Amino acid sequence: MDPRIREHAEIIANHSVDLQEGDNVVVDAHPVAEDLVVALHEVIGDYGANPVSTSQRTGKRQQRAFLRASDGEFETPEHELALIENTDVYIAIRASDNVTQTSDVAPEISAAYQQAHRPILEERLSTRWCLTQFPAPANAQLAEMSTEAYESFVWDAINKDWEAQREHQANMVEIMDDADEIRIKSGETTDVTMSIAGNPTINDHGEHNLPGGEVFTAPVPDSVEGEVLFDMPLYHQGREITDVSLEFEGGEVVSHSAAKNEDLLTEVLETDDGARRLGELGIGMNRDIDQFTYNMLFDEKMGDTVHMAVGRAYDDTVGEGNEQNESAVHVDMIVDMSEDSFIEVDGERVQEDGTFVFEE
Amino acid sequence: MDPRIREHAEIIANHSVDLQEGDNVVVDAHPVAEDLVVALHEVIGDYGANPVSTSQRTGKRQQRAFLRASDGEFETPEHELALIENTDVYIAIRASDNVTQTSDVAPEISAAYQQAHRPILEERLSTRWCLTQFPAPANAQLAEMSTEAYESFVWDAINKDWEAQREHQANMVEIMDDADEIRIKSGETTDVTMSIAGNPTINDHGEHNLPGGEVFTAPVPDSVEGEVLFDMPLYHQGREITDVSLEFEGGEVVSHSAAKNEDLLTEVLETDDGARRLGELGIGMNRDIDQFTYNMLFDEKMGDTVHMAVGRAYDDTVGEGNEQNESAVHVDMIVDMSEDSFIEVDGERVQEDGTFVFEE
Repeated sequence: MDPRIREHAEIIANHSVDLQEGDNVVVDAHPVAEDLVVALHEVIGDYGANPVSTSQRTGKRQQRAFLRASDGEFETPEHELALIENTDVYIAIRASDNVTQTSDVAPEISAAYQQAHRPILEERLSTRWCLTQFPAPANAQLAEMSTEAYESFVWDAINKDWEAQREHQANMVEIMDDADEIRIKSGETTDVTMSIAGNPTINDHGEHNLPGGEVFTAPVPDSVEGEVLFDMPLYHQGREITDVSLEFEGGEVVSHSAAKNEDLLTEVLETDDGARRLGELGIGMNRDIDQFTYNMLFDEKMGDTVHMAVGRAYDDTVGEGNEQNESAVHVDMIVDMSEDSFIEVDGERVQEDGTFVFEE
Repeated sequence: MDPRIREHAEIIANHSVDLQEGDNVVVDAHPVAEDLVVALHEVIGDYGANPVSTSQRTGKRQQRAFLRASDGEFETPEHELALIENTDVYIAIRASDNVTQTSDVAPEISAAYQQAHRPILEERLSTRWCLTQFPAPANAQLAEMSTEAYESFVWDAINKDWEAQREHQANMVEIMDDADEIRIKSGETTDVTMSIAGNPTINDHGEHNLPGGEVFTAPVPDSVEGEVLFDMPLYHQGREITDVSLEFEGGEVVSHSAAKNEDLLTEVLETDDGARRLGELGIGMNRDIDQFTYNMLFDEKMGDTVHMAVGRAYDDTVGEGNEQNESAVHVDMIVDMSEDSFIEVDGERVQEDGTFVFEE
């Protein structure tokens, strides 16, 4: 086994989820990630924790078969809920043998399925969870890279000094923690303002997301005004959505468009009320991620990007007394900030063309 | 997809587990069985049932890694137990990419793990469960067959008229249902008697086991006397055990030997008190299984065999007021009855050299 896989498993256990003796652990992965699953089971055995192995979230071919055969009426599966309710640590490994596997599932069916699974999502988010990536060939293909080059890209971004990364990001957390208004401007297509007053900014140094490398908070739901062109494509339910444009008034999306698969974007926004409002503002700060790979887990961490998510706001990004945006979805979208762009915090420019004020 | 796989999935759903709308289903399988998992998900979607996909029992490479890293102290994992407690239908698909994957796990570690998982086994056995086989290349190799020939062997044995099989087997159930003593004699090495008085004989026509094709009951625990040479090899925890010889007095194994991996047999028998007594007597009656493939699920159904299991007796084979043998294990072993052999029921010969009295 590639020694970088064992190192990856140890970072997940020791750093990301802080594994403890007796923990009930779920490892969810597609078979192409088997090496990492095996390495994790070694670590879990070593700690005296209890593994259950599933392919529920990542087994997209079987999920496609199930969803296409179903009538679109779903209930919350009590057995899956009971599993997660009794789980301390949930590790999801992204890896696929075909990233477009669910591309021919009707978006409204997927949305109904997600809606029924919302209580399970809530339970997963209350565990010590970690979402990470295994560098499978299909993911390399999506990144337009050889498998070997992609392996180096993934493990370089993951197997690193997370304490140093945490310290780097603390500069930005300090700026945002007492801030009120954020303005993000890029070219002629993006100029948006929002309040983050009273909402904590989280320093993501590789815990829930591995790789980590961003700081993020929740916008005050009604405060978002302006327009954003998300110029990086995203993959949602196995389909690519490009050039998403959203216009906000009073926090709500009042018009939207996309160059490709606009219908899928419409489905996302129509999931529920919260799906038309922002649940997250994130600022990428991981300089070891030096190229786009069409994978949100990495792209959103790049130092030259910001991202916003429509849908659910994470609990720990909402201050006491502030409103928390609720939704069955959480869909991230990215703005490239490398050129003709800036971020202002309470009127002060903290990033210009991708470079932070505290960077040399 | 091979149409025989869809037929297999439909037999599981329609016949074996009697799938219903709203059922909470667990499908446990190794990735090499993916086609059958996908076909099952189509059927599950069609019925409006709820699938959860695991590789807990069948992911032997990860299980090996976990067990080798652990210290041999296990607790019952509450999350796995909660999953199964809320499960209506449990479908386990046997298939492997290496049937000897757990051959270098210490038997006492495996035994301790099984002991801790006993409450989960109990819960699985209280669902509408089905154990079946997917014809993976490694399983074909074990059977000493080409993959294509093995596929035909497996699906011929599974995709058949189970009502006709049920009627054939009813002849033997009728003979055994009011019987007291069974005597099984084969060559000079096997001559054993046991009482089955008061214990129901089950007609296995492809429900819990697919393929089915046996009738089975539980011996009265203390009644077994004599000796048995199990002349067919068995695979247990990834290792082959050959020529198991057991001598019974008052129902208990008082001496044992094996030509190969006797230590593993000893571990099985020392699991707990019940592991030294018989929990099952089965008589194979499936004439479509025409060769040994070193796979208990098939071998024990052959018309020219009987099998006995040390360990746990199934609930429905124990009559009211009769003692039920309890154990964390249930390990089947086979006697070839095709030559120089007979079965007597209350002194009457009902099978000779593999041919039943009611067969032409």
